[in-house]
Amino acid sequence: MKARVQVMLKSGVLDPQGEAVKRVLGTLGFDGVRGVRQGKVIELDLDGDDRAKAEKDVTAMCEKLLANRVIESYNIEIA
Amino acid sequence: MKARVQVMLKSGVLDPQGEAVKRVLGTLGFDGVRGVRQGKVIELDLDGDDRAKAEKDVTAMCEKLLANRVIESYNIEIA
Repeated sequence: MKARVQVMLKSGVLDPQGEAVKRVLGTLGFDGVRGVRQGKVIELDLDGDDRAKAEKDVTAMCEKLLANRVIESYNIEIA
Repeated sequence: MKARVQVMLKSGVLDPQGEAVKRVLGTLGFDGVRGVRQGKVIELDLDGDDRAKAEKDVTAMCEKLLANRVIESYNIEIA
């Protein structure tokens, strides 16, 4: 069973990576980029076929390791 | 118009971040994690409503800046 976790900085939190990408896109001639936010994505390959268990486990992984809940939010997709 | 780009290391390329996450998940008691791959996600806020133009522009951004096509693959979603 595959899971995908997307971790992004919360909207009020300064994102220097995203700002850098935005600036460089401007210098490369890409106008019309209003904003850029950069986050991370973690793809997990899990044992078993129990979707509910996978979702519960991955949520626990996010809370314990994958995301810093003070400044980051996460989104889980089970496939 | 919003675009989301996911950039992952190609499957044959060693992913030390993913390996580290996998190992730490094991030490935290999460058994049954077969594999972990970590990549980045870039959310772009673009001017205009032309979906085809947005897709073309974001593809060019990926080729020029966002992804290293030698070792990374990318996936674009326009929303």
